[in-house]
Amino acid sequence: MSRQFFDKHEQTLTSAIDAIAKRGFFSAYPEVPSRKIYGDTAMEDGQAAFKARLGKPFAMDNPGGHPGSDRVGKEVSPYGIDLAITYPSASPIELMNAAERASEQWRQTDIDQRVGICLEILARLNQQSFAMAFAAMHTTGQGFMMAFQAAGPHAQDRGLEAVAQAYLAMTQAPPMAVWRKQVSKTDFVSLAKHYRVVPKGIGLVIACSTFPTWNTYPGLMANLATGNVCILKPHPEVILPVAMTVQTCREVISEAGLDPNIVLLAVDTVEEPMTKALSSSPEVDIVDYTGNSEFGNWVESHAKAEVFTEKAGVNSIIIDSVDDFRGMTSNIAFSLCLYSGQMCTAPQNIFIPKSGIETNDGHKSFDDVVQGIVKAVNGLLGDPDRAAEVLGCVQNSATVDRIAMHASTGETVVRASEQLTNPKFADARVYSPLILTVDVGEDGHYRHEAFGPICWMIATPSTQKSVEVAADLAKDVGAITCSIYSQSDEVLADASDAMVDAGALVSCNLTGPLYVNQTAAFSDLHVSGLNPSGNATLCDVGFVTRRFRIGQSRMPVTEIAEQKEQAHASV
Amino acid sequence: MSRQFFDKHEQTLTSAIDAIAKRGFFSAYPEVPSRKIYGDTAMEDGQAAFKARLGKPFAMDNPGGHPGSDRVGKEVSPYGIDLAITYPSASPIELMNAAERASEQWRQTDIDQRVGICLEILARLNQQSFAMAFAAMHTTGQGFMMAFQAAGPHAQDRGLEAVAQAYLAMTQAPPMAVWRKQVSKTDFVSLAKHYRVVPKGIGLVIACSTFPTWNTYPGLMANLATGNVCILKPHPEVILPVAMTVQTCREVISEAGLDPNIVLLAVDTVEEPMTKALSSSPEVDIVDYTGNSEFGNWVESHAKAEVFTEKAGVNSIIIDSVDDFRGMTSNIAFSLCLYSGQMCTAPQNIFIPKSGIETNDGHKSFDDVVQGIVKAVNGLLGDPDRAAEVLGCVQNSATVDRIAMHASTGETVVRASEQLTNPKFADARVYSPLILTVDVGEDGHYRHEAFGPICWMIATPSTQKSVEVAADLAKDVGAITCSIYSQSDEVLADASDAMVDAGALVSCNLTGPLYVNQTAAFSDLHVSGLNPSGNATLCDVGFVTRRFRIGQSRMPVTEIAEQKEQAHASV
Repeated sequence: MSRQFFDKHEQTLTSAIDAIAKRGFFSAYPEVPSRKIYGDTAMEDGQAAFKARLGKPFAMDNPGGHPGSDRVGKEVSPYGIDLAITYPSASPIELMNAAERASEQWRQTDIDQRVGICLEILARLNQQSFAMAFAAMHTTGQGFMMAFQAAGPHAQDRGLEAVAQAYLAMTQAPPMAVWRKQVSKTDFVSLAKHYRVVPKGIGLVIACSTFPTWNTYPGLMANLATGNVCILKPHPEVILPVAMTVQTCREVISEAGLDPNIVLLAVDTVEEPMTKALSSSPEVDIVDYTGNSEFGNWVESHAKAEVFTEKAGVNSIIIDSVDDFRGMTSNIAFSLCLYSGQMCTAPQNIFIPKSGIETNDGHKSFDDVVQGIVKAVNGLLGDPDRAAEVLGCVQNSATVDRIAMHASTGETVVRASEQLTNPKFADARVYSPLILTVDVGEDGHYRHEAFGPICWMIATPSTQKSVEVAADLAKDVGAITCSIYSQSDEVLADASDAMVDAGALVSCNLTGPLYVNQTAAFSDLHVSGLNPSGNATLCDVGFVTRRFRIGQSRMPVTEIAEQKEQAHASV
Repeated sequence: MSRQFFDKHEQTLTSAIDAIAKRGFFSAYPEVPSRKIYGDTAMEDGQAAFKARLGKPFAMDNPGGHPGSDRVGKEVSPYGIDLAITYPSASPIELMNAAERASEQWRQTDIDQRVGICLEILARLNQQSFAMAFAAMHTTGQGFMMAFQAAGPHAQDRGLEAVAQAYLAMTQAPPMAVWRKQVSKTDFVSLAKHYRVVPKGIGLVIACSTFPTWNTYPGLMANLATGNVCILKPHPEVILPVAMTVQTCREVISEAGLDPNIVLLAVDTVEEPMTKALSSSPEVDIVDYTGNSEFGNWVESHAKAEVFTEKAGVNSIIIDSVDDFRGMTSNIAFSLCLYSGQMCTAPQNIFIPKSGIETNDGHKSFDDVVQGIVKAVNGLLGDPDRAAEVLGCVQNSATVDRIAMHASTGETVVRASEQLTNPKFADARVYSPLILTVDVGEDGHYRHEAFGPICWMIATPSTQKSVEVAADLAKDVGAITCSIYSQSDEVLADASDAMVDAGALVSCNLTGPLYVNQTAAFSDLHVSGLNPSGNATLCDVGFVTRRFRIGQSRMPVTEIAEQKEQAHASV
């Protein structure tokens, strides 16, 4: 029993470990929502499964089900549908009690059993990718395709990456060694030394409202693989994708004959939040947090636990020169529009020399560049169906207020944000990007994060100054990505070095179908830990260490016993 | 130039990496102070080198020497010799300025260059092992043999282990990858991705007064290998071994054509300490701390940096039954006496069932066991030369006061601590162990750390109760080691599991020449991170992660360029 899931998925694990060693392209879960891959009726089945949940209590497992007798839930899709799903709501004390009981069992399991369960959970989540896509779409407001990829296979790949890193860290050395030391010309002393993974205990994973699975699967999987029970805490307005995940985890864990409370759902309401109580609880040993910087800083300074954070920042594009002007403006326009700038990797500030830039179309003035990007945005959003798919919805109405605020500060608006109509969902909350221009010297709003479809084109005296300001901003308020355009190898190298040192993942000269917003599991490191945007990198070695420790015992062995131990160790 | 030291020591690194993978016995630096290994005149040369430093300003490198125009230093050997050495004393601001300048250069070096420099430093420290032994002996008060091993080869092995772990973590994946993704039946897109180690910046390593090199080489080497400059902050009464280390680092770094301020010495005085100012300085990115729990807790809560701590705890021996009573009492006696109980791994509390234990000599009552250990202590200390070598000196006079305090609390003294005379050093501060008995139910002093040669024999209703109390103490106040004696496999397994879960490194049935106090590099994990005794383990993967991050940049490549990149990557 104990290794059944491990054996079933061992090849996936081996491939993932190989991918980590190579950093090249790898994906275990197909990102194309094709019927050939996912089945002829996958789309319809997924949609039906989503619809079947609407207006009902979410059916968590029974009997001996999830703690919490109350039910809460007021999710309304940014596309205008009232989800009207309720979830079991347990208090922090009920959750901690259940987690502590479950932890006693989970910590006794061995590495292969736990890793096998993780891989089976990921495989079953993959099978539900269409249902998950609808759930993510109607909570985060993403377009369908993004919801499918980001909440489905891409999140699963990130989860697998965390499992593989955890496996590598836990198995760096063997569980048993015979230590044999010569103490004189003829004498030896020997100790049999046994090592085992000791989990920290209880992990809390706090989800954000925009990427509820992509940003939680790494922490969830790293916790489970290393023997920690895991409480998933969704944003009160984006619960469904997390609840489906918890349900799947509990299903697999139950099938393995273990306590389903090894994974728990912590649901609260906007009116009565409990994230602070949970994350500062002395029972919690590990906190993974994704979300805004203010709350993230609170968690970092108040939690007694090991804390892994991914917070916000101000991402920059630095334009120096380009050999494909149209390719650049199209690429930037897509990055600005994709999910209405609500990705933590989306650019906010575009630095352009006042004196203009050299391009394949000759010299372009600052205004030419600005207008080129505005034109590309307008072109991209010209088709209503495409606009609806690319922009998705604005997840939170506070973002709409933020757009209005920034439109009226007196800064120059070169492209106004407009409310758009989604052809399929009349009540969808859709807004096109607001684009402003400022001079770099102004003490402008661009120096702070403006979450949502809001961006600045910033006139600078030189590319050198652009880099300097972008790097300083990254160091001061954080940055996750940076995009640089230059035809000079020297400028590119210097700018790239400065921005990498400032902790941004740098993309250079993107003019085709690859975007600065995208990061790929196994190859791209998400969040560097080098600036205020967070201390956790998806998924490096450090993402899994400190979630567990190696406990050790040792005992003298005689030579005969030593031979036995060695024979045993080599099995 | 840049790889010269790396090539010279590559075999040592390879062996260390192999040792980490196997956890068996490995030592790169011979622990036997033999003339055959270290040279015919090694002992005399080491002693002469030590004596030559006495009464003089410590000659740090010149010109362009170490920051700080003042000189301080008031070391007096616990053996009674006034060292009268003065050291350059720089202010925190002078140190930070020098460290920041040096950091600009050090962060530009590559992994092999830095690792090579680390290995050369260790090799040169190894050559000075005799001089270091005298320096450690006359500051920490250790006996000569322990000073040689712990301050010399054993510290060097721990340093090498940290270098190897850092190398593994930095080179887990290649510095370059071509990421090639199929986007349609015929089309691919490719990105060349480059990765590089980005150090955190400035590391501070705070040494303790008892093991100034063993406990600092791991942090020093982990910092240097990962590209961080390092400020070593010795205890104001135990400076010389740290100053010699800094001098050696600066010598090697200078020979490599780099700024010697990549390693700095921060000397203060008991009257005007600067450890708090240094460790809470915003310029400091990493703090390694070894020492008492009170100060360690302060550092953990006040430093803005990544903090790695090794603090104190209460180590237990649990006696259930034994098949070699005399072997056990001798073994325990040695552990209690070795360096006068001033090792962080030394036992303090010995739990014994009230009803006595079964042994190869038949049933022994609680008092029999107590008297057996007392007799073994008296036997071990009966020979003045052996007593002097095993006990060493009490490092700090506050420990003498602590012995007196615990002798007069009203608890039963079964063995009084006596002031002893060292045959060679008339003024040496030598005290034999104080041994007390208490009932486990008393709210006794045994529940807190009593640093020095002070121990309790604790009467318990059962072994189960012994384990319960020892485990609770470990969880509440910390524990680094635990020794268990039982002839029942079941009792041994249960007790061992409980104590490993409580974060102690467990040793079972030690009756021969191996002691609970000893931990071996590459095989024994020192400090588990599972209880209040500290959060850093020497040397697991987590000891090196978070000292650096991986920075990344990526750029589209055409197929031809891709082939070139791949050819380059495979070189």
